Amino acid sequence: MTGRLIVVGLGPGDANLTTPAVSKALAEATDLIGYITYLDRAPAGPPGQRRHATDNRVELDRARHALSLAAEGKDVVVVSGGDPGVFAMAAAVFEAVETGDVAWRALDIRIEPGVTAMLAAAAEVGAPLGGDFCAISLSDNLKSWATIERRLKAAAEGDFVIALYNPASRARPDQLGKALEHLRSFKAADTPVIFVRAAGTSDAKIRIQELGTVDVTSVDMRTLVLIGSSLTRKIERPGASPWIYTLRSERELS
Amino acid sequence: MTGRLIVVGLGPGDANLTTPAVSKALAEATDLIGYITYLDRAPAGPPGQRRHATDNRVELDRARHALSLAAEGKDVVVVSGGDPGVFAMAAAVFEAVETGDVAWRALDIRIEPGVTAMLAAAAEVGAPLGGDFCAISLSDNLKSWATIERRLKAAAEGDFVIALYNPASRARPDQLGKALEHLRSFKAADTPVIFVRAAGTSDAKIRIQELGTVDVTSVDMRTLVLIGSSLTRKIERPGASPWIYTLRSERELS
Repeated sequence: MTGRLIVVGLGPGDANLTTPAVSKALAEATDLIGYITYLDRAPAGPPGQRRHATDNRVELDRARHALSLAAEGKDVVVVSGGDPGVFAMAAAVFEAVETGDVAWRALDIRIEPGVTAMLAAAAEVGAPLGGDFCAISLSDNLKSWATIERRLKAAAEGDFVIALYNPASRARPDQLGKALEHLRSFKAADTPVIFVRAAGTSDAKIRIQELGTVDVTSVDMRTLVLIGSSLTRKIERPGASPWIYTLRSERELS
Repeated sequence: MTGRLIVVGLGPGDANLTTPAVSKALAEATDLIGYITYLDRAPAGPPGQRRHATDNRVELDRARHALSLAAEGKDVVVVSGGDPGVFAMAAAVFEAVETGDVAWRALDIRIEPGVTAMLAAAAEVGAPLGGDFCAISLSDNLKSWATIERRLKAAAEGDFVIALYNPASRARPDQLGKALEHLRSFKAADTPVIFVRAAGTSDAKIRIQELGTVDVTSVDMRTLVLIGSSLTRKIERPGASPWIYTLRSERELS
């Protein structure tokens, strides 16, 4: 087994947020595999580099294909957006290893981290992740809605800031509304809810609302939703969107 | 107010994990401010660039100093490790804005995200953050131990993967042991506990243990601790440390 497989995260969108380590892996690969939207963001590679574009729905098949190519001796890079370990391809690759050819365990498999969407979204509005926080994917393709509700409740009971990934899609238009309705049982009506679409790109769009009166229309898969803790605050400023941040301390401001 | 303040995260350690956007901000700044360990990681800037090294303990004073310099018209960069919005300087800057000179609200303040420690730590061992997860700082400088225990319990009840930042220091040698003891009330004894020291550097060191028999000696502030969920799995492999990942799905492996 001489092949190599690196799972990389391109970051949230702008090429300036892709780490040099990821750029180097992309430039050296013989084969790139990924969802076509991410492959299109990878710069042109060396002559002969092959690109295997796939549909977004088949993570496990894509992982097995990548492992097969690596087992043939190729230098394979699996391309994710954001960070590959956060609701992306890295876990699928290891699931394919565990359930696949035992020889795959001898492959050189590496993960190259990246800037995940919640960090870019937080940076667009200030520092809402300044305290302890949770990340929850609202997609119920892979887990039950009961699990999602249990996690939302636990996150509220712990007074965590909450980052919601995959908040809505055409197949699941109502889940974000249901999730926020569930959270209203546990959190104050004036809790800030921040929608950041296309964070970390020049098209970033921010909406800041409150949990009690939130409007979830126009939220899509490119949107990251941040829900404050009891210590999340808003700083109004002249002629611009307010800054949002979460106090590091439970003590009074001084 | 013509000055500018950018709060940047250098990433976990290796220069190849610092984003080009952060490198550009560092190269253009007139003034860098930060804890000396982080300033020492910033490459040499343009002639005349001033560096204001501070002690790690005085985040709010450092933030006020940075804002004062920006208000004088300087291009100031506040330097954090990892991501500046995760247990780092961004929240302190906004706290200083809210409690400081109202004119500071007109400053051009930006946050440049980075690869936070838990992403680099996860990448060292596989994909342990493959499911929903929480990040908790164990430092009780700014919050009560009761709050920390409440969050640990909530994270366990939600069956989140847990990332513990700031697990121990000379001033707080016993807190990690207390935190894991608390978690033993709620989580299975065979839950994987992963210690990654100096993640994202060539000195990275990994220890994989189980919650029931965990040994917390030799854990320090450069260590990131990851605690699995019920879906976190270990893949043994020949001649190397096992891979750890968290299943994306509650369904059986196929």
